[in-house]
Amino acid sequence: MKGVAIYGQPGSYTEQAALNYFGSGTKFTYYNYISEVFDAVERGLDYGIVPIENSIEGAVTQTYDQMIGLKLHIVGETILRVNHCLIANKWVRLQDVDKVYSLQQALGQCKEYLQKLKVQIVPYYDTAGSVRMIKEKRLSNSAAIASERSAGIYGMRILAKYIETNKHNYTRFFVVSKVHNGIKGDKTSLVFSLKSRPGALHEALGAFADNKIDLTYLQSRPILGKPWDYNFYVDFKGDGSDKNVKKALNELKNSTKFIKILGSYKKAKQ
Amino acid sequence: MKGVAIYGQPGSYTEQAALNYFGSGTKFTYYNYISEVFDAVERGLDYGIVPIENSIEGAVTQTYDQMIGLKLHIVGETILRVNHCLIANKWVRLQDVDKVYSLQQALGQCKEYLQKLKVQIVPYYDTAGSVRMIKEKRLSNSAAIASERSAGIYGMRILAKYIETNKHNYTRFFVVSKVHNGIKGDKTSLVFSLKSRPGALHEALGAFADNKIDLTYLQSRPILGKPWDYNFYVDFKGDGSDKNVKKALNELKNSTKFIKILGSYKKAKQ
Repeated sequence: MKGVAIYGQPGSYTEQAALNYFGSGTKFTYYNYISEVFDAVERGLDYGIVPIENSIEGAVTQTYDQMIGLKLHIVGETILRVNHCLIANKWVRLQDVDKVYSLQQALGQCKEYLQKLKVQIVPYYDTAGSVRMIKEKRLSNSAAIASERSAGIYGMRILAKYIETNKHNYTRFFVVSKVHNGIKGDKTSLVFSLKSRPGALHEALGAFADNKIDLTYLQSRPILGKPWDYNFYVDFKGDGSDKNVKKALNELKNSTKFIKILGSYKKAKQ
Repeated sequence: MKGVAIYGQPGSYTEQAALNYFGSGTKFTYYNYISEVFDAVERGLDYGIVPIENSIEGAVTQTYDQMIGLKLHIVGETILRVNHCLIANKWVRLQDVDKVYSLQQALGQCKEYLQKLKVQIVPYYDTAGSVRMIKEKRLSNSAAIASERSAGIYGMRILAKYIETNKHNYTRFFVVSKVHNGIKGDKTSLVFSLKSRPGALHEALGAFADNKIDLTYLQSRPILGKPWDYNFYVDFKGDGSDKNVKKALNELKNSTKFIKILGSYKKAKQ
């Protein structure tokens, strides 16, 4: 049975994304940090799954910053609709709650609801992990923000559903592996840095435009130790083995100092 | 005397940046959230100062996401070298410390030092605010990560200096105001969104390249409520009144749905 490294505790959004992507027949192992997921795959686990972008928060910058130095390939992509619930112990009523725990991002996404509730918000390292902590400590004045599924897993009560401010809340995940799966993809991710000259970014993107390649995403990230110099992460339509993609990557060399293909894969359905 | 809204408590890095930028002769008011700084300027305070980018962490995304909807101009820019110190009450020795408080980003930047110290790390809403909290609660087993200046302000002891992992640690700040200052700048910030067609980003950047305008920064951010559609924030050399800049902005309309000039200003010395 193939092994999958999951970011977060059982009931986390990443675990839900993994269930959607892999179905049953894989064994999940859980890690509290994105770096630990990558470590587990580098040490031999078959797959890892990590969040890469949320439609409200933007890029998951830790994922980008760590991925660049690894010998892993992106082999898949999946998108999850995020629904936040307010979750507490079975005997707790909404009016008893004066503290709410969750991942910083989840708290931020439910800010309007929490302001009406007039509670203290407490950042925690994981969404489902905060549900488990509240259960283990048998807290009666606290609740957690996490997925509906996590309430079921830990036998907890859902006090409120769909509490996120903006309902267009999706998270995109990358599936990584040490080995290519050999399947032809329709989407590719790569990172490059530019030669230091004016117009270099325009020239770099020209390599894609000239070869009729459609960019779907571009994200700049600082290069560590080189203030105000950047790596550019792009996603585009097409497989690394496509003729026009090969031609574009060759042209891209003119304006860049560094290019790394992170992987070609089947793009997520939404 | 002109009033300046500062992000963070007295002793914060933003306050230091404001001292460097304004010198003496202005009155500072302190706010715990970036949104409160913007609110204060919109309600009539002369200036606000907020972090926009760190050379390690990247964009300060809250600043970008909030700035787009405001009627404020960027009128200045300043860059601060960030040196982190470990700060505790006067009677506390390094070996007494088992908990370290600070802003999440500061804790992250000192991760290697903290791992050697084998302490529990606790996220707090502000760097200098964590120094003040430790002082007020007279904690004997805790320390904070903040600026050297904050230790002086609160009469605290510096247990260690320069504890950040990467020494190339700079933060860039924007100074905002309701009114233009009338000074001709040499740098401009603007935000645009693209028409939905392949190659639109390349075309948009062509408006700058064709007019010999040097882009210094590009950052994509999600558009709220429109998953996988983005605003692009760019900084470039030149003033909004320059002939070639006006020409570029006119050309930019061909490939964009929306353009907003955030301000022209004198670029920071470093």
